[in-house]
Amino acid sequence: MQHLSINTIKSWERFYRANFINCLSGFKSANLIGTVNKDGQPNLAVFSSVVHLGSDPALVGFINRPLAAAPHTIKNIEATGVYTINHINLSFVEKAHQTSAKYPVEVNEFEAVGLGEQYIDPIIAPFVAESLLKYALTLVEIVPIRYNNTFLVIGSVTDVILNETLIEVDGFIDIEKANSLSCLGVDAYYKPTQLTRYGYAKPNSFEYDSSAIKLTESINKIS
Amino acid sequence: MQHLSINTIKSWERFYRANFINCLSGFKSANLIGTVNKDGQPNLAVFSSVVHLGSDPALVGFINRPLAAAPHTIKNIEATGVYTINHINLSFVEKAHQTSAKYPVEVNEFEAVGLGEQYIDPIIAPFVAESLLKYALTLVEIVPIRYNNTFLVIGSVTDVILNETLIEVDGFIDIEKANSLSCLGVDAYYKPTQLTRYGYAKPNSFEYDSSAIKLTESINKIS
Repeated sequence: MQHLSINTIKSWERFYRANFINCLSGFKSANLIGTVNKDGQPNLAVFSSVVHLGSDPALVGFINRPLAAAPHTIKNIEATGVYTINHINLSFVEKAHQTSAKYPVEVNEFEAVGLGEQYIDPIIAPFVAESLLKYALTLVEIVPIRYNNTFLVIGSVTDVILNETLIEVDGFIDIEKANSLSCLGVDAYYKPTQLTRYGYAKPNSFEYDSSAIKLTESINKIS
Repeated sequence: MQHLSINTIKSWERFYRANFINCLSGFKSANLIGTVNKDGQPNLAVFSSVVHLGSDPALVGFINRPLAAAPHTIKNIEATGVYTINHINLSFVEKAHQTSAKYPVEVNEFEAVGLGEQYIDPIIAPFVAESLLKYALTLVEIVPIRYNNTFLVIGSVTDVILNETLIEVDGFIDIEKANSLSCLGVDAYYKPTQLTRYGYAKPNSFEYDSSAIKLTESINKIS
């Protein structure tokens, strides 16, 4: 195992370093966020930073980069208070990634990349027609992250659109069946396959055998 | 496709609803966070909300649930300013999930679940010996999310420990080769397989054929 200090990492070429740091946080959720500005002009952009904040109330967050780099989505959400999050499915991943290109503000990314623009009354923000799991949110708060000029955008889920055959008996959604994807770094996409569901963990319901301790002791010695 | 309003979802049984809402945000990164309290007592806990905040400076965030539900990790980070994030690999996923059980504060989860506690001088927080990609952070800011009493904990990466064969020629880290996992909802784990890397998208480097438009028009009609 290699030990890299941040000073070493800082000395690397800018794009090499960005690829490396972007991978540290691990596999991410691959989504398209749909918005309109106050004149109804649509915008669609790929986001990999969607994060669950709580289930009651149902809150979902995402990180918006600094305004200079990524102004459209956050400005539209501020202006209208409404947006959609659409899972990227295997069938349209290439088009979805293409929305990350820097199109001028007057370009409708739905048209530019060839994805269907779907409106579900009374939600004014567009959904991605092809997405098999998507939801609408109203803006709760935009939290500025002062340290690097990014923003945590917090929304409250108002509507969920999905094929109900995806919902399992305990409410779990089988997004693998919808071919929802994961992503990594700035440009890699992944198809996850379920290993297992472990259920709710309790302190007394788990036993590990002592061979595990011997194993970790050996690893500690060699690392 | 089914359209579910939040009022319908709110009427569901609590655990069914929590499973459902937890899946909306999609695939997540599966990590263990290692800390110590001011007396050096270790804590290890699974977190699925790690999020990339920026690469220069290298900032990573995670969501900590309300203090009443999950006090140990955040209190230790506040007390010491240092913590580790360790990718969960296939070889120890069951032990990793078990750290989510509510052990009393005096229990060392490394010992309780049988994972190796590794210290790398001068970092006072413990790493998971078995993890093939892990990093240390210093606390930058704890941002309270007032709407539901959760917290965004922001850390600055100081050290990265990994097998250097994971690093590709452009800095991208092949975490699939390390068997890093993804998770979904509160208890499901996934093994992601890479589809492709698309590279940096530019407005003029993409062409879609008109059959795509016809397809989305048909989908709009039936949905």
